[in-house]
Amino acid sequence: MSSSVFADSIHPISSVSELASCFTCDYGKASKIDAFGFLSALAERPSLPRKKGAVILVTADTPLLASRGEGKTTATLALVDALRARGVDATAVLRQPSMGITAAGSKGGASGGGKSSLKQAQLADWGLFGEMARIETAQNLIVSRAERALEEGELDEVLLPRVSEIPSKALRHIAVATGVKGTVGADVETGVAETCVLTPTCELMQILVLSHSREDALERIGRMVVGAKQGAAILARDVVDPERVLTALGDAFNPTILETLNGSPIYMHCGPFANVSLGIPSLSSIEIARALHDVVIVEAGYGADAGAEKYLDVAVRRHGAPMPSAAVVVTRATTWLGDGELRWRFPFNINRLEKDGIPCMPLVNLWDGEDDRVPTLRAASQELDLREPIVGNLFRDGSESLIPQLDGLLDLLNRDEVPSTLSTRDDVPLLKRLALLIADSYGVPTERIIERKSFRPSLEQACALAADAGIDWNELAINAIKSPATITDDDRLPQDQRTVTLKKATLHAGAGLLCVNLTTSLTTSMPKIV
Amino acid sequence: MSSSVFADSIHPISSVSELASCFTCDYGKASKIDAFGFLSALAERPSLPRKKGAVILVTADTPLLASRGEGKTTATLALVDALRARGVDATAVLRQPSMGITAAGSKGGASGGGKSSLKQAQLADWGLFGEMARIETAQNLIVSRAERALEEGELDEVLLPRVSEIPSKALRHIAVATGVKGTVGADVETGVAETCVLTPTCELMQILVLSHSREDALERIGRMVVGAKQGAAILARDVVDPERVLTALGDAFNPTILETLNGSPIYMHCGPFANVSLGIPSLSSIEIARALHDVVIVEAGYGADAGAEKYLDVAVRRHGAPMPSAAVVVTRATTWLGDGELRWRFPFNINRLEKDGIPCMPLVNLWDGEDDRVPTLRAASQELDLREPIVGNLFRDGSESLIPQLDGLLDLLNRDEVPSTLSTRDDVPLLKRLALLIADSYGVPTERIIERKSFRPSLEQACALAADAGIDWNELAINAIKSPATITDDDRLPQDQRTVTLKKATLHAGAGLLCVNLTTSLTTSMPKIV
Repeated sequence: MSSSVFADSIHPISSVSELASCFTCDYGKASKIDAFGFLSALAERPSLPRKKGAVILVTADTPLLASRGEGKTTATLALVDALRARGVDATAVLRQPSMGITAAGSKGGASGGGKSSLKQAQLADWGLFGEMARIETAQNLIVSRAERALEEGELDEVLLPRVSEIPSKALRHIAVATGVKGTVGADVETGVAETCVLTPTCELMQILVLSHSREDALERIGRMVVGAKQGAAILARDVVDPERVLTALGDAFNPTILETLNGSPIYMHCGPFANVSLGIPSLSSIEIARALHDVVIVEAGYGADAGAEKYLDVAVRRHGAPMPSAAVVVTRATTWLGDGELRWRFPFNINRLEKDGIPCMPLVNLWDGEDDRVPTLRAASQELDLREPIVGNLFRDGSESLIPQLDGLLDLLNRDEVPSTLSTRDDVPLLKRLALLIADSYGVPTERIIERKSFRPSLEQACALAADAGIDWNELAINAIKSPATITDDDRLPQDQRTVTLKKATLHAGAGLLCVNLTTSLTTSMPKIV
Repeated sequence: MSSSVFADSIHPISSVSELASCFTCDYGKASKIDAFGFLSALAERPSLPRKKGAVILVTADTPLLASRGEGKTTATLALVDALRARGVDATAVLRQPSMGITAAGSKGGASGGGKSSLKQAQLADWGLFGEMARIETAQNLIVSRAERALEEGELDEVLLPRVSEIPSKALRHIAVATGVKGTVGADVETGVAETCVLTPTCELMQILVLSHSREDALERIGRMVVGAKQGAAILARDVVDPERVLTALGDAFNPTILETLNGSPIYMHCGPFANVSLGIPSLSSIEIARALHDVVIVEAGYGADAGAEKYLDVAVRRHGAPMPSAAVVVTRATTWLGDGELRWRFPFNINRLEKDGIPCMPLVNLWDGEDDRVPTLRAASQELDLREPIVGNLFRDGSESLIPQLDGLLDLLNRDEVPSTLSTRDDVPLLKRLALLIADSYGVPTERIIERKSFRPSLEQACALAADAGIDWNELAINAIKSPATITDDDRLPQDQRTVTLKKATLHAGAGLLCVNLTTSLTTSMPKIV
């Protein structure tokens, strides 16, 4: 990538796109942009005209089955193509698919589908330019150093998990540095117990999503908690030079610029798995896209109760990310209406966003053979007093069916009624903020929040580790961990009986997150796909 | 990369370089070439003129310290630049440095040094385009599947090791799927014992080095031994579709085309770590370079007793790789002459290659402050009846000091005395071939080969697994595993007392290798750098 030093005096930079091109490198199949380089060059030129793209959040209904997508990426790509066909300078920012999940054979990638696909779908589904792999190497480097420190007595437990891109049930609980009786396959003596999480869900990935500069990233890497000695936190900077970790991350900080089949520009960077991690693309990629385009569609999944919650509570409230001017909530006819007991979820997810002042456009993505359901869907929408939904078979028809349906969405973008931001809730204590999150996003009031016995001790440990890491407890954002397919402990109960259970809290000091395991559904950051 | 289907009838391909360009993709910082695509397109056009580059093997003296290089890569790059300055169309084929070793902080990379460096040194040292990472993901995918098969009772031990790019002592012996008493850090109950090896040394990497086509690679991946059930081999193709593994490997099969600081073309692909693995670049990259250039320098390290032995015994004898027209054996003044008891090794390594008919040029790579040692070095060379050595400070002076010293090397290339190949030794039983290897490359006769008790049982297990995998035992090549810093059990003993100890044999059915641990020095495929 280019250096941030320019001879502006010789060749003055006259436009933001010219500035961006100085930080863009063609990688053959796609380009990458030096995120921090471009953003700091932009900050150094306050008088250079730039855009301030309006954000449309594309999120979804709570899925019945997490593995069969509602089609957020497909809808996002179709919307960009349709908006551009209507003369709007639109782009989208996508999360990078998890190659490990695809390689393990569970899912066909996350690069859209049919006519609403990425031109470089194979590249996107199979690891782009090695970004995830670099994150894996870099986090495992830190853990290796912690293991050595353990051997040398500098710490007595390793807390930072190892990471693996391949989802392997066998890696959920591992032991390293084991003695082995006889040959491999024999009984294992005591070793150091560790956990292993899926690479895209790890803390270093969260740091990539949230960092706004090189210095910020270095500081965050350095303060990751890697282990403890007699209960006191040992930080990454105690065992490894953060600069070395940053070098190992290489280009992973730089968003990739792809295209739809129709040639619309698409950014892809970081962050899938809203169930256990953030589920949103990097804030730097959103910032870059906004400087260069009028409308930026940001994908946040799984459902609105996961990715959208995190976009609002973590990105907007805690990191100053732009408030969405509108949201598109994608569902399937079957997801919305197929199970009577769960039919409340689609309007709930929409109203949850509307309550924060974000106008929501329902979008029903049809499967083949569902064209005759359009009248039923429109009637259901009207009955619930939702906005007139966008309906289409986006896999089969691409953006074509959307182009004439965009008036409503374009109207929303031109309204001034959306609040410019959400309260930071800086003055609200952390646990109270958690209760507000549960009330806002899951519809469960404080009196129906249940605490498992294990919750308070884990919270106290997290609190003590945060103090050791020099972190202001109340500055942490909350990363809710829960199954993507359920909002509450049991979504089939009547509204006034639904509960949410607090199970465990874990600190991600580097990412500035308190991760809280919620609901009684099993959730793990290492899915058991193989 | 381009498809192998061309409209030759419309735009006839008139040169091998034009054909190569159809399979080359610019990745911005460097290019990659679709190895199997180009090689099969070349095979389909027997009448298209192509070069048949002469191979110069660059190898080294046995190092005193493996971590402080003799400067093979530096010498290789200086030689290419110097040859091109003399009007020779020369290139080199390098092995990819291990990013994990660099990231762990043990070594500064392997991309040359000073004036004899790669233009894209940072790219080369820090993971190119993610090739190693893809190999790691792909081998770990196979192991994950084996672990699942174990859980389902389809096998009762996992034999294929997990891999990690970061060299971590704690990963040498691990246990997966452990039960954990209480919290992390508590005692570990029984789990599945496994090992973990450094990514560049793994069997999948060896398959990349040796495969000559896509079909060959698929077949090799499929027959990797992943585990056993009641002693009978379970193969990779029993637990995973080899096509899926190949897809996960992506571009890892494709060599990268880099440049020296002076703009000479350099290929880089696969294979460091001759101590535990092959230590040579991929055979496909050598074949590509030979079709396009008159002289191809192939780097094989560590010393001649490691990488060069493997180039000759594995690549030439078993895989039909081209016989080197000459070898350059690199040393330091201190490595050669610094330790009186080990002074025999440099001439031994040279004479070992000469005995196979390969004319050897000694090259002494000076450190700063050693310029006054040139007369001593030349005298020592003369006394030993070696060829007049090339001497220079290649870091400081680059190719400049070499240009006037190349007459001897160029003369060697023009001689017809080198045998066109070495015997395949097809009719020699495997253990006899091992004895010949030890005699040829380490100077130890059969009667001084010692067998540890554990050797025969491990050999028998390997033999049984090979039979299960449908492999002809005598078609296996031998992969010698030993410390890079010693040739025999104790190099300080007089010549007629030196021994070699056979410790353990392991089968790599996919790579077609019997890996044999030799000498009493500790050698491991997971160095304890962190």
